[in-house]
Amino acid sequence: MNLILLSATQQSSETTYQLNDRQVQHVENILKKQDGDSIRVGILNQGIGQGVYRRDAGSVTIHNELLSPPPVLPCTLVLALPRPNMLKRTLMNVTAMGVKEIHLIHSSKVEKSYWQSPVLQPQSLHEFLIEGLEQAKDTSLPNLHLHPRFRPFVEDTLPDLLLERTGLVAHPYQAQACPVALATPSLLAIGPEGGWNDFEVESFTQAGMTCVHLGPRILKVETAVPVLLSRLHPAL
Amino acid sequence: MNLILLSATQQSSETTYQLNDRQVQHVENILKKQDGDSIRVGILNQGIGQGVYRRDAGSVTIHNELLSPPPVLPCTLVLALPRPNMLKRTLMNVTAMGVKEIHLIHSSKVEKSYWQSPVLQPQSLHEFLIEGLEQAKDTSLPNLHLHPRFRPFVEDTLPDLLLERTGLVAHPYQAQACPVALATPSLLAIGPEGGWNDFEVESFTQAGMTCVHLGPRILKVETAVPVLLSRLHPAL
Repeated sequence: MNLILLSATQQSSETTYQLNDRQVQHVENILKKQDGDSIRVGILNQGIGQGVYRRDAGSVTIHNELLSPPPVLPCTLVLALPRPNMLKRTLMNVTAMGVKEIHLIHSSKVEKSYWQSPVLQPQSLHEFLIEGLEQAKDTSLPNLHLHPRFRPFVEDTLPDLLLERTGLVAHPYQAQACPVALATPSLLAIGPEGGWNDFEVESFTQAGMTCVHLGPRILKVETAVPVLLSRLHPAL
Repeated sequence: MNLILLSATQQSSETTYQLNDRQVQHVENILKKQDGDSIRVGILNQGIGQGVYRRDAGSVTIHNELLSPPPVLPCTLVLALPRPNMLKRTLMNVTAMGVKEIHLIHSSKVEKSYWQSPVLQPQSLHEFLIEGLEQAKDTSLPNLHLHPRFRPFVEDTLPDLLLERTGLVAHPYQAQACPVALATPSLLAIGPEGGWNDFEVESFTQAGMTCVHLGPRILKVETAVPVLLSRLHPAL
């Protein structure tokens, strides 16, 4: 946690926010702050500032103007739903990298049972995104969309997402080398372990997307995602 | 496992290798191969080929010339020893990305107890590297060096490693933006969670290395490593 991230529900006066238990523990036990010390805070979907810690009240009072959060990574990420035990890490890491539009979609190699996992509860997903923001000192919550059916996503949602974006599908076959440092925003679709099937690849390419590969190495999704994002948009 | 990786100790004739139990299980249960089917194999520190699976013998007979493994990532990676539960994933991922020289070193923010962990046994480290090669369809085993003391590494080893390499230290302060697509091989030093201390940064810069940052976002080591490697050497 590199930032104490406060939300509107924690606000108790114009400049004062009540810390929750997790934040008090972090301020006391990790940061070792005393009453009256200054701590770095962010206001969700606003900016970053400094506040004075009030131990008795369990609160922080912001005493300067808020600064802007870090720049956004101009990539809309379309990701085949990862297995439940990888979902938290994946969402945290892409949030920390600055992705603001995340679409989790079904694919033939995603087990249907993954969509019933408790980690997909809204509260749980929200926490993963918050942890990613806290890691990266960001305040701007990503938009996360779930699409448990592939075809309606491709037919009804994808065309709008592709407006003014370079659409790329990570796919090792019949593909060109992934471009470096795009001049435009991107939409990047990354498949499950085992990849997209033929119908899925054809649906993406018919929508105007291009298949790209990373060379002869096959990387795990957890490695491929940061590698691809960094390669497309190196000035993070 | 995207490649059945065979070593010299498994060779039983000029072209035949005995599979170990783990490989037989993979060939039978994941690949669902029958007797006489062709499987993709690699010979450790040699090349990649096709072989015929002989179920009764539990062996594979290679029947063509070996092809070269994927190109090497021209980065020597100097990494503060990760915590034991992160070490396997880290070594697998950097091996899968094609790093061939890995130095794990001590740093003031690395707990001394990490150096006593059983995951640092040679057999265990070897397995992590093998899994990284199997993931990426590579055959060329990385060289892994352990340096449990910081100062002897910097004084006695680092100068030679820096010959004809661009030396970079990932460090968020007093740093320039990390370059994109280096024309030279690199030596990249990545610190522990919490970063290098002042003495360590000074030791690196006195050796001729440059501090680089990735912008205002703080990333976990597991994300920062693929992001930095992809940014320095995007044509993996």
